[in-house]
Amino acid sequence: MKKNSKEAILKAAILLFNSKGYTGTSIRDIASAAKVNSATIAYHFENKAGLLEYCFTYFFEQYIKKMEEAYSSIEKGAMVCLKRMTADLLHFHCENSQLASFIYREMSLDSQMVREIMSTYLLKEKYYLQKVFERGFEWNEFRPHSIPYLITQLKGLLMMPFMNTHYMREVLYVFPNEQFFEQKYLKDLHLWIDKMLCTDITRKREAVLK
Amino acid sequence: MKKNSKEAILKAAILLFNSKGYTGTSIRDIASAAKVNSATIAYHFENKAGLLEYCFTYFFEQYIKKMEEAYSSIEKGAMVCLKRMTADLLHFHCENSQLASFIYREMSLDSQMVREIMSTYLLKEKYYLQKVFERGFEWNEFRPHSIPYLITQLKGLLMMPFMNTHYMREVLYVFPNEQFFEQKYLKDLHLWIDKMLCTDITRKREAVLK
Repeated sequence: MKKNSKEAILKAAILLFNSKGYTGTSIRDIASAAKVNSATIAYHFENKAGLLEYCFTYFFEQYIKKMEEAYSSIEKGAMVCLKRMTADLLHFHCENSQLASFIYREMSLDSQMVREIMSTYLLKEKYYLQKVFERGFEWNEFRPHSIPYLITQLKGLLMMPFMNTHYMREVLYVFPNEQFFEQKYLKDLHLWIDKMLCTDITRKREAVLK
Repeated sequence: MKKNSKEAILKAAILLFNSKGYTGTSIRDIASAAKVNSATIAYHFENKAGLLEYCFTYFFEQYIKKMEEAYSSIEKGAMVCLKRMTADLLHFHCENSQLASFIYREMSLDSQMVREIMSTYLLKEKYYLQKVFERGFEWNEFRPHSIPYLITQLKGLLMMPFMNTHYMREVLYVFPNEQFFEQKYLKDLHLWIDKMLCTDITRKREAVLK
């Protein structure tokens, strides 16, 4: 019962934070949507800031875990590893599209919590991406290029559908929470890796293996 | 004098909306930062919502104008046109990086104003991009591909540095308002067009012309 109310609160909070924004949502709104009283929210999350922190940690703990798991396949090659990483991260985003959308909006603000997230999770993310790119350059799998600019592009491609879900649905008629989107967009992300990163040698080797 | 106060209000509002968020900023904060009284803000913009609307219109009017101007060069070829479009839009974003950052964050919310912006400006944007891609396919300059998925990627690449300015500065040490960034990142955007869109014929023709 208690676990159910915690989950219901979290679900309602993500939905409301996403559509109305964090500052535009009150504890009372969340309580009403989750069908609990405010005291139950206080019991589980202390206050609205506690709920926000829980959302951030919940999202980024899983995000970094996916990266770490994918990174463990680095010995198979930088391209294989990066393709697995993008597949796993895209899948994670598709499964948590509302949470991702709201988290990314909040991450664009200049707050204490955002700074803490950056100095922990996003530095770790940079570390893993940097490692993959460096191995790719070293093994001549990837063409040399500025790592921060590659990270910018890869993150831009990965985040865009989830930062602009209303736009995606209502202007482009693309639905980022659907499996069809995930399959189709993953091909584009992998094409980006093939075309923008891989050397001709890597592409030829890959073609032979196929 | 009046024009100066209007500009000072706008500048202060963009700065505060960007760092503290729209809902996190009060008219009093803006008045204090712009060194005017609240009545002056009311005189120029009515209220906070009026100020927000002004920011949106100010941003998207210029944005669409840049697109229209670039689109006028379509007869020179789809690739040339799209490269000019990305160059002009990137330049516009770099010059208005704080405004872009705040506008994109607000655009992720589900509000009446956002829906109006989508049904006017973002549909126009889609129209121009679609035209360019279609001409590119027709003239065998671009490889056929799903237009909504191409728009997603191009917009993701273009918006990312401005949606995450704190991250760019503090994690990647990249400064999206600087000329150095603009020059370097434009090369990446153009490389994306060359590698992801252009057919081998286009690339060879381009090489001969150079």
